Amino acid sequence: MTDIIPVVLCGGSGTRLWPRSRKHKPKPFLPLVGDTTMFAATVLRCAPKDGFGHPVIVTGTAHLDHVEAQLPDRANTRILVEPVGRNTAAAIALAALLLPRDAIMLVCPSDHHIGDCDAFRSAAREAAGLADKGWLVSFGIAPTAPETGFGYLKQGDPIPGSSGRKVERFVEKPDLARAMEFLASGEYAWNGGIFAFKVGTFLDELAKHRPDILEAVRASVNKGRTDGLRFHPDADLFTQVPSQSVDYAVMELTEHAAMVPATMAWSDIGNWQALHEAQEIDEAGNATFGRVELLDSRNVLVMSDGPRVSVVGVSNLIVVVDGDEVLVCSPEGAQAVGKLTGAANQ
Amino acid sequence: MTDIIPVVLCGGSGTRLWPRSRKHKPKPFLPLVGDTTMFAATVLRCAPKDGFGHPVIVTGTAHLDHVEAQLPDRANTRILVEPVGRNTAAAIALAALLLPRDAIMLVCPSDHHIGDCDAFRSAAREAAGLADKGWLVSFGIAPTAPETGFGYLKQGDPIPGSSGRKVERFVEKPDLARAMEFLASGEYAWNGGIFAFKVGTFLDELAKHRPDILEAVRASVNKGRTDGLRFHPDADLFTQVPSQSVDYAVMELTEHAAMVPATMAWSDIGNWQALHEAQEIDEAGNATFGRVELLDSRNVLVMSDGPRVSVVGVSNLIVVVDGDEVLVCSPEGAQAVGKLTGAANQ
Repeated sequence: MTDIIPVVLCGGSGTRLWPRSRKHKPKPFLPLVGDTTMFAATVLRCAPKDGFGHPVIVTGTAHLDHVEAQLPDRANTRILVEPVGRNTAAAIALAALLLPRDAIMLVCPSDHHIGDCDAFRSAAREAAGLADKGWLVSFGIAPTAPETGFGYLKQGDPIPGSSGRKVERFVEKPDLARAMEFLASGEYAWNGGIFAFKVGTFLDELAKHRPDILEAVRASVNKGRTDGLRFHPDADLFTQVPSQSVDYAVMELTEHAAMVPATMAWSDIGNWQALHEAQEIDEAGNATFGRVELLDSRNVLVMSDGPRVSVVGVSNLIVVVDGDEVLVCSPEGAQAVGKLTGAANQ
Repeated sequence: MTDIIPVVLCGGSGTRLWPRSRKHKPKPFLPLVGDTTMFAATVLRCAPKDGFGHPVIVTGTAHLDHVEAQLPDRANTRILVEPVGRNTAAAIALAALLLPRDAIMLVCPSDHHIGDCDAFRSAAREAAGLADKGWLVSFGIAPTAPETGFGYLKQGDPIPGSSGRKVERFVEKPDLARAMEFLASGEYAWNGGIFAFKVGTFLDELAKHRPDILEAVRASVNKGRTDGLRFHPDADLFTQVPSQSVDYAVMELTEHAAMVPATMAWSDIGNWQALHEAQEIDEAGNATFGRVELLDSRNVLVMSDGPRVSVVGVSNLIVVVDGDEVLVCSPEGAQAVGKLTGAANQ
């Protein structure tokens, strides 16, 4: 089997980690857990040894400076620069068209936290083995709560000679009642958004299910230009690519969907409460960053990039000071941060 | 009876409204309730009409600029400038020594909120009538909670021909159990820190109980200097005045202590929770000042002098942004704000 080629997807910008995450410096480029940015941690997690090759980064023009500044090994990393975002099917197709057909791609979002790096690499090798045999492989995360913000994988029959299973069904974000059923049944895993594909398999499946996407990306690649390690697909043609997620475009339609179980302290850091849970906390459940004083307080996350924050007699709260914005939210309120005027209009 | 001379005491600096209140601009000089500063509101409440004369202000060198900038009628207001603070007995003695012996002084702290101005003036006239007959009169506030931060007055026999009563006993800040007893008994009032005295009576009582304080203040006055409407007692001599509250020095010792009941929406705005309670709130119990967005939040007080503050899913919380300081505290934590490093070291 050839080396695993990490394909790190580095685009988009959420609103739920506002005001720390902003349009001009979104989540992947921030050191949200520890001192390393989410993007740099993703690349370092895929370091080129033990079956992993040099990574390929897919990013947008707007984020190129961040990517190049934060890349651990810029001299050996190809960067594919999307003129506009066209969702994950197009981003993965772009990378696939520039790689050998027999290469194994490991598609990684750059804004997830993975606490257990060894478990990740081990699962990646398992997934790569299945991909080499023609499976399109998702990472299945053992669910720990009835999350309604994630997609779920219903696990099917085991695949002999591996820890993997067929995926019987993909379920988009369920309501709470269904999520609780899924959790209780033990038959479902969270869709971690990490995938392993053999390049040729992926392109064939995309050609079968969404040839419009494949041909539009191919046209933009054919007219693209190389600039050192950067590749720029033709901007006008790439803009015409239909925008669709790889889940909808391929994974939910293919007959070759598989999953590997991955127990690796994963979090999508999807909101402030998730970030609090991913932090190292003290014995009172607190985590603080910057100039912070706590008095009689428990289970608070406080981050400040400047002003001192003093917290007295408070439990279960998130306080974020970033530039000219101050956010105060409860764990329950964390999901709604994106609805704030500041987050929506950033 | 002569006019009531309001003697507005304007010194000291607390820590429990930090970071809004700072050493260089303490509580009296801030518009904490409404658009008027506490000091200006105190002076306006004592406007010279209907039995009130022009006020006398007692303040410290450090606050003189604030006083002069905020005085509604500077041309008619005497200002007595203490070189250092020596507590209320000395401040009142200073004013008394500069007023006619038959004048009625109405001693008013400048950092209390009084919602019902008419009730205040009415109680003041009642108190002045008693003071004119030789009583030393406190304002008794009907207690609404077992506060442990206030002094209490035990009400004695009614004084014929007035709504006043003798004070049977002064009780310094009680513990919670005693405060609850006081509240349940119906026999106690809060000591509002507002007093009416005939000047001569006050000086005689001070001479009787603390002649050291009286003579030290008198010496500083005799060597003092007048500068227009300002009077400066001699700094060296005033510094030698023993520091004591009027409660300890006179009120708890005199045989002529009386009180008038005052139901006037009084608050000492002693901490952030008290300030929240004194504010006009919306139907969800919220009060906001500055650039604030609330989402799914109840019973919060948010003040910002600059940055936008966004609050999501939060109940029962106080958030204050002031310059380079951010305070977040619960109602229960409000009493402990003074213990914060920032408040203690301001």
